[in-house]
Amino acid sequence: MSDLDPEEFRRLGYAVVDWVAAYRAGLGGQPVRPPVEPGSVRDRMPALPESPQPLPALLGELDRTVVPAVTHWQHPGFFGYFPANASLHSVLGDLLSGGLGVQGMLWSTSPAATEVEQSLLDGLAGALGLDPAFTWAGGGGGTIADSASSAALVALLAALHRGSGGAWRETGVDGTERVYVTAETHSSLAKAVRVAGLGARALRIVPPAPGTLAMSADALADMLAADVAAGLRPVLVCPTVGTTGTGAVDPVRAVAVAAAPHGVWVHVDAAWAGVAGLCPEHRGLLDGVEFADSFCTDAHKWLMTAFDASLLWVRDAAALPAALSITPEYLRDSATDSGAVVDYRDWQVPLGRRFRALKLWAVVHGFGLEGLRAHLRAHVALAAELESRVVAEPGFVLAAPRSLSLVCLRLAAGDGPTRALLERVNASGTALLTHTVVDGRYVIRVAIGSVATQREHVDALWDALRTGRPDGP
Amino acid sequence: MSDLDPEEFRRLGYAVVDWVAAYRAGLGGQPVRPPVEPGSVRDRMPALPESPQPLPALLGELDRTVVPAVTHWQHPGFFGYFPANASLHSVLGDLLSGGLGVQGMLWSTSPAATEVEQSLLDGLAGALGLDPAFTWAGGGGGTIADSASSAALVALLAALHRGSGGAWRETGVDGTERVYVTAETHSSLAKAVRVAGLGARALRIVPPAPGTLAMSADALADMLAADVAAGLRPVLVCPTVGTTGTGAVDPVRAVAVAAAPHGVWVHVDAAWAGVAGLCPEHRGLLDGVEFADSFCTDAHKWLMTAFDASLLWVRDAAALPAALSITPEYLRDSATDSGAVVDYRDWQVPLGRRFRALKLWAVVHGFGLEGLRAHLRAHVALAAELESRVVAEPGFVLAAPRSLSLVCLRLAAGDGPTRALLERVNASGTALLTHTVVDGRYVIRVAIGSVATQREHVDALWDALRTGRPDGP
Repeated sequence: MSDLDPEEFRRLGYAVVDWVAAYRAGLGGQPVRPPVEPGSVRDRMPALPESPQPLPALLGELDRTVVPAVTHWQHPGFFGYFPANASLHSVLGDLLSGGLGVQGMLWSTSPAATEVEQSLLDGLAGALGLDPAFTWAGGGGGTIADSASSAALVALLAALHRGSGGAWRETGVDGTERVYVTAETHSSLAKAVRVAGLGARALRIVPPAPGTLAMSADALADMLAADVAAGLRPVLVCPTVGTTGTGAVDPVRAVAVAAAPHGVWVHVDAAWAGVAGLCPEHRGLLDGVEFADSFCTDAHKWLMTAFDASLLWVRDAAALPAALSITPEYLRDSATDSGAVVDYRDWQVPLGRRFRALKLWAVVHGFGLEGLRAHLRAHVALAAELESRVVAEPGFVLAAPRSLSLVCLRLAAGDGPTRALLERVNASGTALLTHTVVDGRYVIRVAIGSVATQREHVDALWDALRTGRPDGP
Repeated sequence: MSDLDPEEFRRLGYAVVDWVAAYRAGLGGQPVRPPVEPGSVRDRMPALPESPQPLPALLGELDRTVVPAVTHWQHPGFFGYFPANASLHSVLGDLLSGGLGVQGMLWSTSPAATEVEQSLLDGLAGALGLDPAFTWAGGGGGTIADSASSAALVALLAALHRGSGGAWRETGVDGTERVYVTAETHSSLAKAVRVAGLGARALRIVPPAPGTLAMSADALADMLAADVAAGLRPVLVCPTVGTTGTGAVDPVRAVAVAAAPHGVWVHVDAAWAGVAGLCPEHRGLLDGVEFADSFCTDAHKWLMTAFDASLLWVRDAAALPAALSITPEYLRDSATDSGAVVDYRDWQVPLGRRFRALKLWAVVHGFGLEGLRAHLRAHVALAAELESRVVAEPGFVLAAPRSLSLVCLRLAAGDGPTRALLERVNASGTALLTHTVVDGRYVIRVAIGSVATQREHVDALWDALRTGRPDGP
């Protein structure tokens, strides 16, 4: 009945490491997304065993049942959604976290879990060129949320609390609150608005500046003024740096200027693109973030860190605890009462939290900032090359300006052929692509950014695209 | 700039496995909670490196900076809060998840991630004796949330949507909603009410039945009727099976009977105690759960599974997606459109999700249901013995009836001596205890349930308690 003893753990741990090594080494030979029928995995799952079973039997089940039915997100041919990298550095960092098995809900429940996270987020704020106001020394601070969705939700809650003059905790929302996004903003903002009890009617869709997919700051200013005049209360605006659809970049500085007169919280969602700020040549993307109230970018997308690791910085370190703290007797302790420490449970919805900072630390330690920049630059260069090919190839259309490592394309022949092309490439197993819709047209997104993706994989993708189109050579 | 190659990963992975094995093996010799000054870890953290650093240097930093400053939750002398087990079986399961590195947000983004989870939750529903209505075949279904806090939140959101006749998604909350708990209910319910925009005024504290700490179903019935008569809308009641303070058990069946006439959603929070349902002799605790709308118990507490793994079952599989689904173009796919699959992103606030089911599977596989029952029973037996000692020892008072493996005690000499005793034991480093307040009195909680805890550790704790009191022998 007891847990593995250290010697068993060592032996079985080596076996699992070997299994992972073999899985990763063999990825290139697997179809990125194998064909799977709904229910087929459930049909093959064994009943829960009454007696303990040996680990190798579990590994066998994985080989037989699981591996043939997962989408291989770590595959070098993964160009869908945005790649969610689980670099092997980060996998080892996460194993250290599992080994320690600590709970970082309060500072006192594991001081290092809190302080390593604070330190890393301060360091990354510097590396990204964020305003020092977002660091702990500057009166703000960073945290690791599970996802950009959750980061947006807590930013909204802090905004609601601040916008209510502190009444929100007691009386809730009143139906006059309004939140400003664009049609390209990630759906997590609409979800946050819903979760927060505002309903879809609270969501204002700011139109794009003419000829772009980016928020019009002028239109925002007009909408804010009109809503205030109508007795409504603007609480939050979310400019996006790198939308999911096409990588469009809202003008953060101008948005912040429009928001300021009304005291509206500015939350910058840079889930995918924000990490590019590590490279000085891309730091212009973050222009104006110094005027935002909160800024989010995902380490678990392009920063090589296994999900979940969304980085959230706020300008006012008191804002999230003011909105979210609740201290029952069983969570009271002298460190918290002293006010000298940060309790990260007050920065999130869940109470418990893993030591997520270790996987992030392992990534920065193992790649170094130079290595991370090299990755970002390599992906951007590959995307630029693909963009050139698309532009030069008859029958292909660049559907939106390239944004960093995201290329959006379609066939001149129309939606049907474009969709057929995507489906043909995906069915081939050599690459995985996903789509969006731009100006009413079906568009293929090529998101380059998997840690394993090299030139040869983008070349192979281009060949598949060129030869796969209905009228292909 | 590239990630570890398979051979490097193998070599470094073995080193990390060795590090974890040594950490766990050495735990008994560490103080459970070492003394740490606020800021001391941050002061020692190195700057982010520009160039890649070797992994052994990171392990060295952990030994120097982190290990001396974590609370050792996996220590056999950990009796605080509720133990959050990260059994080594589960650590290996989580390593497999990291190795695969897949995203299970949609069925199509990794079919096995969804279906293994569905299958395991069905199997565990059976092993816990839950009503088949909570299984996928029965029209309900289970999911793994990150925490009981998040499970309570999504249950509340589903309740709000259902209670509004479907208007909630569009119009939000209206201030008439009410949620029913007791003074002993976990603070996550108050947090969920706040997050959902209801404000603290929406929270109704149902008094206990006389002479108990458990909810009075009669009082609940009266409050519901009075609120409805006053034009308010009761939406959710949360009976707890095993409160955090003392392990009290609300009468789920009677609560459900009181809630039924008003169509109120019944969410059972059995975060700690629910897993005891694996043992037939404790299954009475779950009496009445068959009438609930949702039921939550944490695998990451007493079921040996590394955080985060909170198990949530709902009776109506459509309830959470009805409240939470949003499908932008870039998340549309044919599997989702077919309606034949479950997209777990619609069961939670975040979009992304790890393959959490693997660590749970590794636990059930490695211990077997027999092994899990043996663990639970051993902890309950140790607690019963401790309870007898407390009752028999002059100067000690049993502060609440023992609940499974939770013993609450105080000194007859009063709050000051009881608090001093807790602090003395914690300072000794041999054990970690936390406290609560019962009937206005300071009470020491002894939560037995760490996977490593054996008789000798409870014996040592009792010696420390007996000899540590101000008037001790």
